[in-house]
This record gives sequence, structure tokens and C-alpha cells, in this order.
Amino acid sequence: MTSPTNQVYPIVWQDDRVMLVDQTQLPNKYAVVEIKCCEDMATAITTMIVRGAPAIGVAAAYGMYLGARDIETEDSETFFQELEKVAQLLRQTRPTAVNLFWAIARILKAASETIGSVAEIKEALLETAKAIQLEDLQTCHAIGDRGLEALPANPDKLCLLTYCNAGALATAGYGTALGVVRSTWRAGRLARVYACETRPRLQGAKLTSWECVQEGIPVTLITDNMAAHCMNRGLIDAVVVGADRIAANGDTANKIGTYSVALVAKAHKIPFFVAAPLSTIDFELATGMEIPIEERHPSEIYQVGETVICPPGVEFYNPAFDVTPAELIAGIITEKGVVPPDSLHKLQF
Amino acid sequence: MTSPTNQVYPIVWQDDRVMLVDQTQLPNKYAVVEIKCCEDMATAITTMIVRGAPAIGVAAAYGMYLGARDIETEDSETFFQELEKVAQLLRQTRPTAVNLFWAIARILKAASETIGSVAEIKEALLETAKAIQLEDLQTCHAIGDRGLEALPANPDKLCLLTYCNAGALATAGYGTALGVVRSTWRAGRLARVYACETRPRLQGAKLTSWECVQEGIPVTLITDNMAAHCMNRGLIDAVVVGADRIAANGDTANKIGTYSVALVAKAHKIPFFVAAPLSTIDFELATGMEIPIEERHPSEIYQVGETVICPPGVEFYNPAFDVTPAELIAGIITEKGVVPPDSLHKLQF
Repeated sequence: MTSPTNQVYPIVWQDDRVMLVDQTQLPNKYAVVEIKCCEDMATAITTMIVRGAPAIGVAAAYGMYLGARDIETEDSETFFQELEKVAQLLRQTRPTAVNLFWAIARILKAASETIGSVAEIKEALLETAKAIQLEDLQTCHAIGDRGLEALPANPDKLCLLTYCNAGALATAGYGTALGVVRSTWRAGRLARVYACETRPRLQGAKLTSWECVQEGIPVTLITDNMAAHCMNRGLIDAVVVGADRIAANGDTANKIGTYSVALVAKAHKIPFFVAAPLSTIDFELATGMEIPIEERHPSEIYQVGETVICPPGVEFYNPAFDVTPAELIAGIITEKGVVPPDSLHKLQF
Repeated sequence: MTSPTNQVYPIVWQDDRVMLVDQTQLPNKYAVVEIKCCEDMATAITTMIVRGAPAIGVAAAYGMYLGARDIETEDSETFFQELEKVAQLLRQTRPTAVNLFWAIARILKAASETIGSVAEIKEALLETAKAIQLEDLQTCHAIGDRGLEALPANPDKLCLLTYCNAGALATAGYGTALGVVRSTWRAGRLARVYACETRPRLQGAKLTSWECVQEGIPVTLITDNMAAHCMNRGLIDAVVVGADRIAANGDTANKIGTYSVALVAKAHKIPFFVAAPLSTIDFELATGMEIPIEERHPSEIYQVGETVICPPGVEFYNPAFDVTPAELIAGIITEKGVVPPDSLHKLQF
């Protein structure tokens, strides 16, 4: 779903159902999947038809509404029991992104705070899901603009490196890390974005580069292991990545490989920024050591398209995320401003 | 060409021609290519049917002989003029691995030092090529055994991480970095080897893991960006990689991504070793900044098998090598022993 200006919106509420851009088929095919019930949404999150922490939150919110809508009762108590089952179904889809749990909790809170009939509660949940989506879009624009202010003043035209896809596709639109890239581009301060391909699922190659091409942003695709060499050659002025969960001390879980980029940026004294909405911060976790790390199927490693890249008899390790310690992060770019990772507590609400 | 004990020899001289294992087809197909003339050999090196710095040296030596053999003259002066053309053809195949230039120079030296007819010179060149191959095999065994001695004493069973393929396939046999892995395995001190897949050409996935499986060495394949996370989780005791060219100060050019592994190893205080024959050291270059870095075709990045991983409109950067500065290297493992990178001059011969 691209608008006339080629802006990408991965989640659209339309005709009493959710339309999702199928991110597993990009960039070769632009397909839209109809999500008609909460089970569809759970599957879409698990199989990564929709992915990216903020987008997962929005998707889960609509999933909660779809589940609520289909509960056939007028009795409040029965309704809340059934709604908790919907929440459980959605909570089990993916473990790392905290926005999932945050959005489900917000929907449950809206349900419990609505005074009225079951039908009125259902209506309130749809409005809450729509609000979450709209707020996320506004949040991304704020992150983009705040991020631009935090970037180095020199050179005038910046080369930014990003990792995975923290773009429009990963949010309600505009993106977090790619929101910063977009704001930098629109301000005339972007020379080029370097996109790491992001093995094993190649979200950088498939999604980030696709988003950039849609909008005419100059993008150079590199393999993940080239980031350090590019930095050494002076090609990178700053790094901006997204986040799946940020602990209270600023430790940040993001796509596997982010930690490596942060380490090599530090070695080259290149500022490394994390761009994420406040809903990504999990104040209940003291440090990143407590963040659960999802392990995914080894086929993501050993197979690219139809091509098997290694022989039988090999073992695999496929963690989907890693944790970047706070001390490697120059600033966390939120919708409320850019804060040093050790000052997150000031944002606690 | 695997022996009954599953040892791999990528280059075999047989029936007046060279038989090469086609490394572009592994691990899905074990195919052998016949090389009958120096033009065949130049193509095989350029297209990476044979790759790996020491193997390129051996292949180039045989390529020089094949070219010499086919010079139809009895006149010495004409012969040497034509031989220089063969050398030029082979020198232009790949720019980074110094073993290529070293082997060609050694063959030319053998030619100039042979007193006798053109036929006798040709015979001497074949013997020199065979000697280079045999010496490389012996060198690799020595590197493996010397490397084992340099590895950490604890724990008793080590987990080693390696990068790209510095294995039997990259040498006359046994390997440099994988020579160290093999010696560690045979000494009962190897718990497991972690092989980075090594984008874009996936030599770690396709070649290193294949070699390990042949020999029953436990191997876990990871994407390159997982190395830092594995180190952080305590899974790696030491890193051993190969080299394409080592400058006099110890700066080391190796497959793109090696520099990144060295930086993240340093951040985790994990020793990072380079394993390479003395012929890889280029005493004519003061530092790694002077090492020419080959750039290869972007299709290596944007296509895996038949799958195109990004949309049209993206730009690419595809350096095939990077340079790891000497200060990140715990030791350079040569056939003469393990030396700190700042003491290479003691090995100058």
C-alpha cells in the first residue's frame, strides 16, 4: 500500500479487516494479505508477514480487536475471559519485541476501563487500535525530526549506515531509524544511506533498500561484514538502527548483528544511535541480560530462496536478536527527544 | 579429490594436466575441472574455480608450466619473452593474494637459473611447480601443529571460530587456519569449530563446513554478524583465520569481514590468530594501506543462487578483502613458528 508519493503503510484497516503488506514476498512481489481474525494475525506475526517491533505492536492491537469482535457473548465476565485467551494467543507469537506486549496490555486496559456493554467495549478496542496506529505514525515523524537534530553537524551531507529494517514497513509508517534517514533526506542533509543486508533474513536487502528506492533515496547495499571496512575507509558518518526492546539501563535488543555494528562503530569513533518509540523501553528489565532472545529455524541460515548453501551434517545456531550494551550507544532517539542511554529513567511515565 | 581418509586435495597433477576441484560448485556438487593450458588456469583463478591464497600460488605455478610447455621454440631468448607473457596473463587474474606473484616469480627464477636447453628448462619448471605444491602441503601441516601450541591452554576442549575458507581447498591440502583446526582436532583438543558463512560468496558455508563434515569435525555454521554475539555468550575461545597478503608491519589482508571479526574479538579479549605461510608475507609493503583491494562484481551481493535479494535501483559496494591492523592480531602462525605481528622482520629471508 503505497500512496501517490510512494509512502509505505504496511498495515491498513479497511472493510472490517486488516490489510497487511506481505513482507516475506518483498522486494520481488508486492502482495497484500487480508487478516480477518485474530488467528490470522497471530500467524502473520509468527511468519513475519508483518515484522518490526512497532508494526508488531500495531498488528497485535488490531489482532486483539479482531479477536474481541468475534467473541459471541453479551456477558462481560465471559467476554473478558475470552479476551484473555486472545491476548495469550498473540503474546505467544514472538518473544523479543516488547511493543507486542505493550500493545496487548494497552488494549486490555482500554477494555477494562470502558464502562458499557460488550458491544461498546468492542467499539472502544477498535478505536484504541486505530489510536495506537496513528500515534505510532506521529511518533515516527517525531523520531525522524529529533534524530536529524542529533546527527553530526559535519559534513553537510551525511552518509548514514543502517541495519535490518526499522523503516515504514516496521512501523505504522515513516519508520524509526529510517524515519531519521527520511528526515535527513528531506532536510537536504543526506548524501547516501548504506544498508547492511542483514543475514539471515535479509531485511536490509529486501525491505530497507526497497523503501529507499521507492522514495528515491540513494542507497548502497553491502553485506553485514563490510560495515567495519566502510567505516575504516571514511564512508560512514553515523549509524542509526531500530530496537526491539530497550532495558531500563539502555541496553538494547535489536536484530542479530546490531551488536557487531555497534562495536565496530565504537572502534572507529562513529556515533551509533538507536531510534525507537518510548513503547520499546521496558522499564521492568534492569539490564539487557534479562531480555529473552528468540531462536529461529536453521533453514533461515542454510537456505536462501531455493539455494541450500551448505552440506548435510552441519549444525546451526540462529539467534534472531542480540543485545547492544548501553555504553556503545551515543543516544536513544525517541519521540520526546534524544537521551543518553543512562538517562532513560527520566522518560519513565 | 578426496583420499580414503577423506582428506581433500584441490589441485592434482595428472596425465600432463591439472585437475582442479571446482570450488564454485561445492557443496552441492563435487566436480573436477581439467586444466590443459595456461589460459584455462587463468580463467580458473579469475572465476574462483580455485581460490585461497596458497592454492592460487600452486595453481599459478602449474599455470606457468603449462604456458611454458606450449611455447613452440628452441630459442632461449624467444622462450623467455613468451614466458613473460604467460606470467603477465596469470598476474592479471587476481590482485590481492601475494602468493600468486610469489609463485610466478619463483617459477621465473627457476627458469632463469636453469642452464640447459628450452626442453630442460620446461622440465625444471614442472619440478618447481611440484615442489611448490609439496612444500605448501608440508607448510600447512607445520602451521597446524605450531598453531595448536599457540592456542589457549584452557579450556581443555576449545571452541574455535574461523572465517571464510583457509582450508585444504585453499592450499595444497590440510589448510592454514583449518590446518590449525585439524591439528587441534587430531590432538583431541577441539570441542567445535564455528564457521562464519562469509558473505557474499559464502566460502564458510560452502567450503569450510563441507571440509569439516568430510572429516567428522563438529561444525556450527553462523551468519557473519553472529560472531560478536557468540563471543559475548562465551562460546568462542579463539579465532583463527587465513591471509591473502601480510604487510611487513603485520597488517593483514584477508577476506572481507575478517577485520570486523578481529575488532569484535578484541572487544571480548579473545585471541585472534592469522595462519599463513611465509610466502604470504610481502616485505615490500610497509603497511596494509598499500595492499591493493580487489573489487568484484555486484552480482555476488545481489544474487544467491537464482534468488535476487534486492530491488532494481540499488547501488553496491563489493570489496573482496579488508585489512586487519597488526594491533588486533595476537600472533601470526607460520611454518617457522608463531610470531607477534610486529616481529615479522625476524622471519625475512
